[in-house]
Amino acid sequence: MGNAVLYMSMSVDGFIAGPNDGPDNGIGDGGSRLHDWFGMEAEISHLDAVARLSGVNRDVMDEVMATGAVVTGRRTFENAGGWGGDHHDGVPIFVLTRREPDATLQWPAVTYVSDVKDAVRMAKEAAGDKDVLVHGAVTARLALAAGALDELQIHLVPVLLGQGRRLFEDMPPGHIELEPVRAFGGPGVQHLRYRVRQAG
Amino acid sequence: MGNAVLYMSMSVDGFIAGPNDGPDNGIGDGGSRLHDWFGMEAEISHLDAVARLSGVNRDVMDEVMATGAVVTGRRTFENAGGWGGDHHDGVPIFVLTRREPDATLQWPAVTYVSDVKDAVRMAKEAAGDKDVLVHGAVTARLALAAGALDELQIHLVPVLLGQGRRLFEDMPPGHIELEPVRAFGGPGVQHLRYRVRQAG
Repeated sequence: MGNAVLYMSMSVDGFIAGPNDGPDNGIGDGGSRLHDWFGMEAEISHLDAVARLSGVNRDVMDEVMATGAVVTGRRTFENAGGWGGDHHDGVPIFVLTRREPDATLQWPAVTYVSDVKDAVRMAKEAAGDKDVLVHGAVTARLALAAGALDELQIHLVPVLLGQGRRLFEDMPPGHIELEPVRAFGGPGVQHLRYRVRQAG
Repeated sequence: MGNAVLYMSMSVDGFIAGPNDGPDNGIGDGGSRLHDWFGMEAEISHLDAVARLSGVNRDVMDEVMATGAVVTGRRTFENAGGWGGDHHDGVPIFVLTRREPDATLQWPAVTYVSDVKDAVRMAKEAAGDKDVLVHGAVTARLALAAGALDELQIHLVPVLLGQGRRLFEDMPPGHIELEPVRAFGGPGVQHLRYRVRQAG
């Protein structure tokens, strides 16, 4: 079975979106700065952006696109318009939510799940040997708390956003030890990968 | 003139101390995890800890100990017992505070200053060609906001502390661009150095 890997771009001060993020402002005010390394512009899809990358940044995004299933938070999913129902290659998308699914955000590959452990288990089964892409701050916290996250791949962007939505906030007390797996820098970003080891 | 460089150990989730930090609990509950890489134990001084290090971690701490002056926040200073009035080599220590100095924390090398720009300017003058060690979260924020911080040296510790005191919090809106200067990993820590470039 593959690993459940969180992939998130984060500023040095810990933000994954600017203030006032929402469906019409996916990554918040000024938050697009976090995607500069990725060449993500408003008018192109993330697939087109990946195709333009080279070097280390391309390698990392190729890993993302080689995952066999997606587990995402409801907010992340809605802010991205559900990726039109296809994040990449039509792989299954498991959306974590406790609310009723939105009728306008229904696609064959999309399944709404209320429990993070169930979501990760279903995604791993669907992904087979491949890794599972985990995305979203709340989902990351829930998965960490449930012991369901295997690795963190943080794309650390050299900027202080100052304000916005944090990746890690309102976490329970108690340390979670990480094991650095690799670290390398691409243009405009440092890719830090950790294995989740244990709660302290 | 040298640079004003913030040196801080920070968890991957952005904390520089555990909860309930104070004069009798300098780095907060469980916060000593952040100093494990540094070999800092309660019964030894930071100078003794440095002397035991080797490799990359020693190189970084040798840089810290080669600075020609210190600018520190009042809380950091008090939580460390004022380092007995001598952080290293008797270099001048400028303590940022808006309160009346504590009569028990007075030493010849220690000067209390109310304005962060004044503190950094005085420290740079005292340090001559050497860099200035900047320490403390509030001091870092004030120095960044005042445009008085030249570089950040973050010792990123592979742990999620979950709760505690953040390095970056309550920052004003507006991006501050950083330029990665170098990044390397030592045992139990990644040393990330950035040049402060501009406010966005």
